[in-house]
Amino acid sequence: MLKLFYSPGACSLAPHIALEEAGASYECVRTNTAEGEQRRPEYLAINPKGRIPALVTERGVLTETPAILAFVAQSFPEARLAPLDDPFAFAEAQAFNSYLCSTVHVAHAHRHRGYRWADDPAALAEMTRKVPETIGACFQLIEDTMLRGPWVMGEAYTVCDGYLFTLADWLEGDGVDPRRFPMVFEHRERVRARPAVSRALATESGA
Amino acid sequence: MLKLFYSPGACSLAPHIALEEAGASYECVRTNTAEGEQRRPEYLAINPKGRIPALVTERGVLTETPAILAFVAQSFPEARLAPLDDPFAFAEAQAFNSYLCSTVHVAHAHRHRGYRWADDPAALAEMTRKVPETIGACFQLIEDTMLRGPWVMGEAYTVCDGYLFTLADWLEGDGVDPRRFPMVFEHRERVRARPAVSRALATESGA
Ligand SMILES: N[C@@H](CCC(=O)N[C@@H](CS)C(=O)NCC(=O)O)C(=O)O
Ligand SMILES: N[C@@H](CCC(=O)N[C@@H](CS)C(=O)NCC(=O)O)C(=O)O
Repeated sequence: MLKLFYSPGACSLAPHIALEEAGASYECVRTNTAEGEQRRPEYLAINPKGRIPALVTERGVLTETPAILAFVAQSFPEARLAPLDDPFAFAEAQAFNSYLCSTVHVAHAHRHRGYRWADDPAALAEMTRKVPETIGACFQLIEDTMLRGPWVMGEAYTVCDGYLFTLADWLEGDGVDPRRFPMVFEHRERVRARPAVSRALATESGA
Repeated sequence: MLKLFYSPGACSLAPHIALEEAGASYECVRTNTAEGEQRRPEYLAINPKGRIPALVTERGVLTETPAILAFVAQSFPEARLAPLDDPFAFAEAQAFNSYLCSTVHVAHAHRHRGYRWADDPAALAEMTRKVPETIGACFQLIEDTMLRGPWVMGEAYTVCDGYLFTLADWLEGDGVDPRRFPMVFEHRERVRARPAVSRALATESGA
């Protein structure tokens, strides 16, 4: 059975939502990054990067949110979570997810995890300070050039939607008012209203 | 016809190599980031992110290195540049590329492009200082846990190889001795010896 290692509210929520949308049978294993559980030897044996998410499959372990999302979409084709038969449209979805992963998530990480890239406390404080500006610019670009509506890719819901939802839910914490981006804001509520998303959120909150 | 916007030696070298390996007919458009050409209005009309690479196709523009690599592999299946018929193996390749994109490339960008995440010159200098350490740690992880040999994914050459080659060729510039990672070092020379790679390098150097 598939086993997802997640931390509440972390980017692992995106694959968590995808698994729910797919109707997959899977198990969830809480690995709380707030308590540093991702650095325990048992977890490092699963994902030596010490990051969440990891998806354990019969064939081995998968890491990296965009790769796990594509895997879930391809493994449950009847759920139609990505345009699987159209390499161009599939690449557009991958490009969106790659932007979230390599630019938006990374910009966010400079708030609390600046120590990845600097040691000096003053530099870390400076990185934290700039986060509202960089995250604001990222979401402005998403609003203006990426989000088609009603879903990220247009008429069809895809794995991109749960991923955007996950990162957009960090906006307030990053000091950015989500109402600055009306399409993103409405999209966030549209995603939140989906039963699969409610189920994933309920599990993560321990409800 | 496909049109690749590249900057010499930038991460666009990875899709450039993939297009050569695929035997694609395509055109190359030099957009030199050293001269800020990625911020010109003509280029922003193609890629509003102001980043290289972008691949213009008949259907529209694709951005993000991992997405372009998957698109090339799927569009030229006879070139066998990814395990297309195996969702798990395909996801492993995607996970590798996502790690390069979201962690290794980002670590490297802190050398000269720290201004993305901070303004204070002291913070930028501090980020630059730490690059050899972070890049060294990334390549240690690749050496120890990812690169299977002879190619990244094992017996078959894939789009992952040209991408790893591209980033591994930045090691010296980032102040890291590539000989610390014997598998990565040998892999780099193995990739460099491929005719498709020579052709891409010759074009980029203006030879
Ligand atoms: N590129 C990875 C990044 C994963 C990542 O950084 N996850 C965060 C949680 S959102 C994490 O594990 N942080 C713990 C840490 O940095 O120690 C992905 O997209 O899956
Ligand atoms: N996530 C993007 C990153 C692209 C990127 O940052 N490219 C660099 C060249 S290696 C660039 O365009 N830099 C110019 C700039 O930052 O202005 C990808 O992997 O394609």
